[in-house]
Amino acid sequence: MEFPSKLIENAVGELAKLPGIGRKTALRLTLHLLKAETEATSSLAEALAKMRFEITYCQTCHNISDTEECSICANKLRDHSLVCVVSDIRDVIAIENTGQYQGVYHVLGGVISPIEGIGPSDLHIDSLLKRIPDSEIKEIILAISPTMEGDTTAFFLSRKLREFPEVHISTIARGIPMGGELEYADEITLGRSIVERTRQAKA
Amino acid sequence: MEFPSKLIENAVGELAKLPGIGRKTALRLTLHLLKAETEATSSLAEALAKMRFEITYCQTCHNISDTEECSICANKLRDHSLVCVVSDIRDVIAIENTGQYQGVYHVLGGVISPIEGIGPSDLHIDSLLKRIPDSEIKEIILAISPTMEGDTTAFFLSRKLREFPEVHISTIARGIPMGGELEYADEITLGRSIVERTRQAKA
Ligand SMILES: [Zn+2]
Ligand SMILES: [Zn+2]
Repeated sequence: MEFPSKLIENAVGELAKLPGIGRKTALRLTLHLLKAETEATSSLAEALAKMRFEITYCQTCHNISDTEECSICANKLRDHSLVCVVSDIRDVIAIENTGQYQGVYHVLGGVISPIEGIGPSDLHIDSLLKRIPDSEIKEIILAISPTMEGDTTAFFLSRKLREFPEVHISTIARGIPMGGELEYADEITLGRSIVERTRQAKA
Repeated sequence: MEFPSKLIENAVGELAKLPGIGRKTALRLTLHLLKAETEATSSLAEALAKMRFEITYCQTCHNISDTEECSICANKLRDHSLVCVVSDIRDVIAIENTGQYQGVYHVLGGVISPIEGIGPSDLHIDSLLKRIPDSEIKEIILAISPTMEGDTTAFFLSRKLREFPEVHISTIARGIPMGGELEYADEITLGRSIVERTRQAKA
């Protein structure tokens, strides 16, 4: 596809780099912005840049946050004895939206994936292990998608967590279809799988 | 959906304003940008803002252009006796991509739509009529999507163009499915419908 303007070409090219956005869609979005008030484009561009450059992560749980400590970690009404370990920020958002969980989180930042070259040291595993001593943590829920990589990660974590026999380890109930991604689960299934989590037997 | 960060919330909100982008997709795009290099976001934001604020339109044909006269109007090798009238810039792009058309264009900027309150005076019709006298224009091709609004617009134009009996009026061949949008036509169909355009009988 050729465009009569380099400006359009660049905008389409940049939008088409986003996952799931092809060049036809990118052109449609570009021409939409072109027709709309200039303010629509400037708000979008500013919101994206601001988000990317000003975002910070919670120093405790690695959740996204506008402050050093995220609003979940800072909330004294939440149950800080319960830590839900997830691979990704979108899992935090998904679980929060079920309204079923009152504990806190720990975001690993991915799953162990030898194919993609992601090993345990690339994930926030050490910081999880460091959170436990001298804390009020009583239970750690492994809420990791039951994919092959997710299961590998959960298995790795279970073994590491043996170091802390006083902490119970549980996994979310398999209400989630096997092989399914956590984030695609509907809110009821995901909420129930948190409530009906199964406590792991000490290996 | 609630987000742990106002920055994320704003980015998702702005992306979700785009046509065809829901909040789930917007979140996915936002988190993608968050994971990618900061440069990916700044290039995207800059390309969009630059496109929107620096774009200009060709003073002759109203095509998008980085200069006062678009590259098509400025091209002496093109057939300036042949003007293809389209409703939208994306139609220019679609027809150009067929590689079948060597004439020039006139972009109306929409179609007559009483429901949306778009009348003839909201379109670049006067500037088309002004282009004709003292020009080399011999034929005007009406390449407007055969929808109800498109047909109304083509009918309106045909009547206006009676003023210029020396100019032939043709419409693109109905290789395009009736009721179909021009821009969705595949390149072969669209290219053929230009080549096999039907000359309108003088009404
Ligand atoms: Zn936190
Ligand atoms: Zn032009």
